[in-house]
Amino acid sequence: MSLQEEVKRNLRDVQDFPKPGILFKDITPLLSNAPVRDRVVEDIVGYFSSFKPGAIAAVEARGFIFGALLAQRLHVPFIPIRKAGKLPYQTLRASYELEYGTAEIEMHIDAVKKDTKVLLHDDVLATGGTAAAAGRLIQQAGGRLCGFSFIIDLSFLGGQSRIQKEFEVPVHSVAAF
Amino acid sequence: MSLQEEVKRNLRDVQDFPKPGILFKDITPLLSNAPVRDRVVEDIVGYFSSFKPGAIAAVEARGFIFGALLAQRLHVPFIPIRKAGKLPYQTLRASYELEYGTAEIEMHIDAVKKDTKVLLHDDVLATGGTAAAAGRLIQQAGGRLCGFSFIIDLSFLGGQSRIQKEFEVPVHSVAAF
Repeated sequence: MSLQEEVKRNLRDVQDFPKPGILFKDITPLLSNAPVRDRVVEDIVGYFSSFKPGAIAAVEARGFIFGALLAQRLHVPFIPIRKAGKLPYQTLRASYELEYGTAEIEMHIDAVKKDTKVLLHDDVLATGGTAAAAGRLIQQAGGRLCGFSFIIDLSFLGGQSRIQKEFEVPVHSVAAF
Repeated sequence: MSLQEEVKRNLRDVQDFPKPGILFKDITPLLSNAPVRDRVVEDIVGYFSSFKPGAIAAVEARGFIFGALLAQRLHVPFIPIRKAGKLPYQTLRASYELEYGTAEIEMHIDAVKKDTKVLLHDDVLATGGTAAAAGRLIQQAGGRLCGFSFIIDLSFLGGQSRIQKEFEVPVHSVAAF
């Protein structure tokens, strides 16, 4: 079975979460399936191997899971990006649009060594707003963004072309809807 | 150098976070240090190997990082425990005391297969309130708690004896203060 099919079989559709009308893709069955989890990590690592990422940055909270696995597999630093107010030390901050209003994410000011090639990971690519804000944090800190990695691309929302246009780096997802 | 010393060298003290008077132990330098990260994972796996954990449960958000690494290393399911309202499917819920009032954590109702031996991970053991609530979730779901794993034990807060008394399972931390 292709990895995309295998991943899709390990997602659960949850109707009306987080609010009415939304069909949520729940990744917890995938997190419980160690062999498929392995294949996902190998797929992402294979796709980006020629870029030689020197660090993995990931967005809390679900992004931390495969983000940590990627950092471990590549034996490189893991950089947490969190919602505003959660990181203890001095931070850089970027905002992104929500349906109503804006939200902010942060990264520690010393999280990225200058010119390090950073691969950014999150579990789901939707409109790309959070990913773009995270990408700007990496660049602001002096890192070189070498790509974006997602488990799921909700491709009907157009996030991939939005972030490719802004950052001109590869955007990879394991399963697209 | 002992692992405990090595881990302590990779923590950063942040004064007055999250509020005045608190000295916060920041684990982000440790997350950036791949060789020490490896040693931490091997230490925890070594300590619990004779218990043969069949799943790792971890508390969001920082607990997800080493929690995922432990699940990958042991090739077992990873079970996320989250703050109330974050998990999409039906959940079990447990509450724990904060300084003022209470908070709740949740786990999916089908997250633990009956009689599975579950190792619970979080980054910091403070008073043990969150860990105890998480332990109750595992038991409520029909799992067999086989131990608690932390990176840091703020031992002056007495969390270890509290959770050992309630659960009668081993409690391991890599660095104690």
